[in-house]
Amino acid sequence: MPGGNRFIYQRKDVFAFSMDAVLLAKFVKVPVPQGKIMDLCAGNGAVPLMMTLRTEAKIDAVEIQELLCNLASKSMVHNGVSNQVRVIHSDILLLKEEVAWETYDVVTCNPPYFPVTSEKGKNKDKPFSLARHEVACTLEDVIHVSSRLVKQKGRVALVHRPERVADVFALMKQYRIEPKRIQYVHPKATKDANMVMVEGVREGNPGITTLPPWIVYDDVNQFTEVFKHHYEKD
Amino acid sequence: MPGGNRFIYQRKDVFAFSMDAVLLAKFVKVPVPQGKIMDLCAGNGAVPLMMTLRTEAKIDAVEIQELLCNLASKSMVHNGVSNQVRVIHSDILLLKEEVAWETYDVVTCNPPYFPVTSEKGKNKDKPFSLARHEVACTLEDVIHVSSRLVKQKGRVALVHRPERVADVFALMKQYRIEPKRIQYVHPKATKDANMVMVEGVREGNPGITTLPPWIVYDDVNQFTEVFKHHYEKD
Repeated sequence: MPGGNRFIYQRKDVFAFSMDAVLLAKFVKVPVPQGKIMDLCAGNGAVPLMMTLRTEAKIDAVEIQELLCNLASKSMVHNGVSNQVRVIHSDILLLKEEVAWETYDVVTCNPPYFPVTSEKGKNKDKPFSLARHEVACTLEDVIHVSSRLVKQKGRVALVHRPERVADVFALMKQYRIEPKRIQYVHPKATKDANMVMVEGVREGNPGITTLPPWIVYDDVNQFTEVFKHHYEKD
Repeated sequence: MPGGNRFIYQRKDVFAFSMDAVLLAKFVKVPVPQGKIMDLCAGNGAVPLMMTLRTEAKIDAVEIQELLCNLASKSMVHNGVSNQVRVIHSDILLLKEEVAWETYDVVTCNPPYFPVTSEKGKNKDKPFSLARHEVACTLEDVIHVSSRLVKQKGRVALVHRPERVADVFALMKQYRIEPKRIQYVHPKATKDANMVMVEGVREGNPGITTLPPWIVYDDVNQFTEVFKHHYEKD
């Protein structure tokens, strides 16, 4: 799989992980030798799996769809990280019964991107819809739950569509997560951004750093050197 | 002056216009054959002067410092645009006595960047302080006044420091200006952004477009071709 030496189980009829997951796992600041990380809306486990290349911290991965949990668990076993990554089959809104509040150093999430009212990108069949649309949880749910899971001064990192960045900021601030780092992904240097990663700190001081953009393709449609460096290497 | 064929009066002991003004004047969407534009915190008139290269609309330029108003007026005469640009010596908070609310197609502003509490970049002498610090008006004042000046569906465009972008979004939303376009300026492709332009629409629909970044210098410290195209040419 891109982003490092990991093998992931996926089924094309469900919801394959995409570039988003790899970029989020590379972007987020993680505690290295120890700590606790939570990944919400984990899908088939791409984000936690990629994070195992960068950290020894324990990772909890929560996913509402049982089929995806099973794929995630298989991938963790295959890659020898099933002691590091615990896959939890749960609705994130019911997590309080499963895990302890305010204990995580970092919470990551690659949430569903599209509001339920949006027609854009809507998938008729249910597993796709749950992964892509805010059916089971809204952006506000994700940020609210994240703010409860994370310690004081802990980090919350999301990948989302740039169209929603004002909403991401507003909701983070509402739940006392101060946006601190942002990085945009542009398919080409001359194109609008099509992905954005945002990281906030719970009870952090205001002031956000805008990192150098990631430009994916060069003029001749090859991966740029900068992108290859981040995306293909550990 | 960079950005096109205009001459501007400035005094080094007051506050010279900078790249920010030129980039804002290039970034903002302006009505071309006619219309009404307001520039707040106009300084020596760099933003309105640059906009005259792109539009025939009438432009009102408001500045609190009389010395800067005089320089701005001289520049408008020198460039033959004193019929198009009216320089108004006023505090933006007292503008209601000078101009009509909800009549402008576009409001632009290159506001003071630093909160009064900030030590960073603080200037001891007063003309500098007024131009750089939120002494005479805060970011909230600027956005509040802009939202009153602009028509329904009119545009409000600001240039600011990227650290403040979450505040810009939050205040725009608070005053019913929906952020619609954003563009970051990075000094180099590998450096964090050091400037950002944001444009919102009053009562606009949510959803923001993140334009391709402007990278100022290339690896050998020359202006990039893209930047030269935008900055040096009309």
